[in-house]
Amino acid sequence: MKYGVILNVLGALLRFLGAIMLVPLIVAIYYGDSLYPFLIAVTITGLTGIFLSKRYNSPDEWKAREGFAIVALGWLSAAVFGSIPYMLDGISPVNSLFESMSGFTTTGATVLLDIEAHSRSILFWRSMTQWLGGMGIIMLFIAILPKLGVAGRQLFRAEAPGPTEDKIKPRIRETAKILWMVYCSISLIEVVALLLAGMSVYDAITHTFTTMACGGFSPYAQSIASFNNPLIEGIITLFMFIAGANFALHYRTLYTDRKSLVKDDEFKFYAVVIIIATSILTFSLWNYMDETISSSFRYAVFQVISIMTTTGFATVDFNLWVDSAKIVLLAVMFIGGCAGSTSGGIKVVRFLLLLKYAKRALFKSIHPRAVQPIKHNNKTVPDDVMQAIVSFVVIYFMIFAVSTGLLSLMGMDIISSVTASIATLGNIGPGFGLVGPMANFDVLPLVGKILLIANMWIGRLEVFTVIVMLTPEFWRR
Amino acid sequence: MKYGVILNVLGALLRFLGAIMLVPLIVAIYYGDSLYPFLIAVTITGLTGIFLSKRYNSPDEWKAREGFAIVALGWLSAAVFGSIPYMLDGISPVNSLFESMSGFTTTGATVLLDIEAHSRSILFWRSMTQWLGGMGIIMLFIAILPKLGVAGRQLFRAEAPGPTEDKIKPRIRETAKILWMVYCSISLIEVVALLLAGMSVYDAITHTFTTMACGGFSPYAQSIASFNNPLIEGIITLFMFIAGANFALHYRTLYTDRKSLVKDDEFKFYAVVIIIATSILTFSLWNYMDETISSSFRYAVFQVISIMTTTGFATVDFNLWVDSAKIVLLAVMFIGGCAGSTSGGIKVVRFLLLLKYAKRALFKSIHPRAVQPIKHNNKTVPDDVMQAIVSFVVIYFMIFAVSTGLLSLMGMDIISSVTASIATLGNIGPGFGLVGPMANFDVLPLVGKILLIANMWIGRLEVFTVIVMLTPEFWRR
Repeated sequence: MKYGVILNVLGALLRFLGAIMLVPLIVAIYYGDSLYPFLIAVTITGLTGIFLSKRYNSPDEWKAREGFAIVALGWLSAAVFGSIPYMLDGISPVNSLFESMSGFTTTGATVLLDIEAHSRSILFWRSMTQWLGGMGIIMLFIAILPKLGVAGRQLFRAEAPGPTEDKIKPRIRETAKILWMVYCSISLIEVVALLLAGMSVYDAITHTFTTMACGGFSPYAQSIASFNNPLIEGIITLFMFIAGANFALHYRTLYTDRKSLVKDDEFKFYAVVIIIATSILTFSLWNYMDETISSSFRYAVFQVISIMTTTGFATVDFNLWVDSAKIVLLAVMFIGGCAGSTSGGIKVVRFLLLLKYAKRALFKSIHPRAVQPIKHNNKTVPDDVMQAIVSFVVIYFMIFAVSTGLLSLMGMDIISSVTASIATLGNIGPGFGLVGPMANFDVLPLVGKILLIANMWIGRLEVFTVIVMLTPEFWRR
Repeated sequence: MKYGVILNVLGALLRFLGAIMLVPLIVAIYYGDSLYPFLIAVTITGLTGIFLSKRYNSPDEWKAREGFAIVALGWLSAAVFGSIPYMLDGISPVNSLFESMSGFTTTGATVLLDIEAHSRSILFWRSMTQWLGGMGIIMLFIAILPKLGVAGRQLFRAEAPGPTEDKIKPRIRETAKILWMVYCSISLIEVVALLLAGMSVYDAITHTFTTMACGGFSPYAQSIASFNNPLIEGIITLFMFIAGANFALHYRTLYTDRKSLVKDDEFKFYAVVIIIATSILTFSLWNYMDETISSSFRYAVFQVISIMTTTGFATVDFNLWVDSAKIVLLAVMFIGGCAGSTSGGIKVVRFLLLLKYAKRALFKSIHPRAVQPIKHNNKTVPDDVMQAIVSFVVIYFMIFAVSTGLLSLMGMDIISSVTASIATLGNIGPGFGLVGPMANFDVLPLVGKILLIANMWIGRLEVFTVIVMLTPEFWRR
């Protein structure tokens, strides 16, 4: 293990993060907020970055292990240094780290008790961390800093380790640039759309940050319910749906082939799941909750897309819904959005391939000697990809089960334990019970918060990148 | 598809079942109960069997499909004809089928409202169906009827499709005979032990039937709690533990190698899970439920083994426990006992191999080019076995999710829907909430009962044997 390489790259990352923190500083100047939180945060983050990158040698080359360590520790560092403004705003260190990790990982779970009491610049930073984390801070770093070269691919794969690789360009730096540009462009369109729908500039930018990142933070405790505006809901629903799909396909749809998106197996399945879940949820709300068909549909489509894309916005306190409605949301929590999107969760493509795998096994039990490869987008899926998917799902459910068990041992009920675990591991945000959409994660004991911080970190990096560091094998030699 | 072959073998099976029903008839004579339920059941079952086996040709040879159909429909027929005595006892047809399917599949979920109000012969039959289903009615059929020959192996595999095959003898009929003899012998020992502990002959036999089968029916509504006797609890705990382990290993331990059981990877993991779950449950009951350490341990060890082996006996209404205690039971519900045992669930070996699979993936992410086969009992696990395990687990969870969703749409709460689904699919019996150990499945709507009857049937035959019949491919040509 080349520790010097890791620390050098982390240093560069922190200098970069320090520079980014100048943005909320400008916002603080504009709104006349206290400048100390961001001035001090920029100074500490920048100086630490400069120290590390000067003290340790520049990276020459590294192996997979160093790549995992850089990405896992890079995200942890971003969360730690990104929590400085919250701490200087008077929030306790663990709560600050929780909020910061929930931001960068685009989870959207909050421990802030009175959200509106915080300054506009602090809430701007809170939304902005989600936007940075959505497309990936490491990817942004790769796109902007020239010196990483070939080693960048490893970081890219460790940060966004979806089962299907989309090579937009042969050079990873070009790919990262394109993805970030597509992300920025669609974000800009959403800002304009929200402004036209009557939102203020501040609200439009902060909600775009957290929609496009599938994040779910809002500067308002009542989330999207505070607007009570069908047009705004519709725009946010549409952009959540876009953000939960593959950005490489968005690029192709815009520049090479108009049908890229609709031809994609994962996207089709994503749309089908949303349609089925919305239908069941609409029926359930209409049948059990005394809602009209149209208001049932309005709540259902927003909430299914919000939860499935792991955004976590709410237009209603769905914790008060009938259990059959909650089960629909619980089911889509486990699925998540598409690979290559800004969403979290297990991801649609993994479910789809597991279903194809199971279907093949049924076929094989009747025709034992038949050879039938698994196809995705008309290409055969290699065995090692299937193995990685199965292993991912096994480890994911293991962490989910352990987390649920530990929370229940801290005295939480089953529903709250289950949903707090999946809501953080899947980077969704709200769950049910104690951690419902209008409730607050501050009710958890300190050690529970630390557990959920770990869940968010592990979940954002799709399990392997963090978990592999816990194996003795990783540290050997 | 050779329908004649299927109907012929089903006929033979029903004649056989009719003959077995003479046993509860004798019990009814002994206790002076009404003889009609069993007289009529024997007549209908026997005559249907004779008709089918005379009308259709004797089996010459068949393929995998016919084997699946015989086993799946054989179990369904046993449940249907086995429900005749209940119907003649005044229970509604769907409730009778529920109780009969719950019996043969060794689930142990009950819809009888006042258990003690039924005659001793009816309750004897109820327990006896579990014992017959425990080691397998098809396996008993193979062991006793000589004419199946080579085709028996297919039936054997379709009834007990564990991922690891244990060939005790080259001939499948010998293997089936030996397993049934081991099963009878250990059952006899349990009867003697329970008699020595002070049980009546009737109680000792009926409870042995349902312990050795990992079934869980008791002629008493209060289950094992009705005895309130630590010695009886201890004996039943021990025999549940034995019944939840692999009977092929029991045979080897008795006749070839004393260390067969303790050397086995699955058995070791089974024991470790029980120890860990019992420890956490003991702590949880002691910490949250104001129990002493010793009574916490007494409840915990009984309940963990009862639920993990999918027996479902209760010494306490665990539905009243704190949620952290319930989560321990919920976790072991999903695991189940060992392959080759009379238990249900996903089975310990499948979990163990999935964990090894995930561990290998972590290793591979650091050493991408390393070749590391998955070992079980020092033998490499073939790829197709791993594929079958993964597919099994995927289909199992799919059925679980669909069943849970459907129950919730019928108005059940999440906890009851989840546990009613897993308790029937895993052939466990009781769940939590509406379907707790001292509650009753009669609260479910009619369509809910039919769904759970299907779950029990699908679960007992480990998913594939039934589900494959739902594919169009199965019926083609």
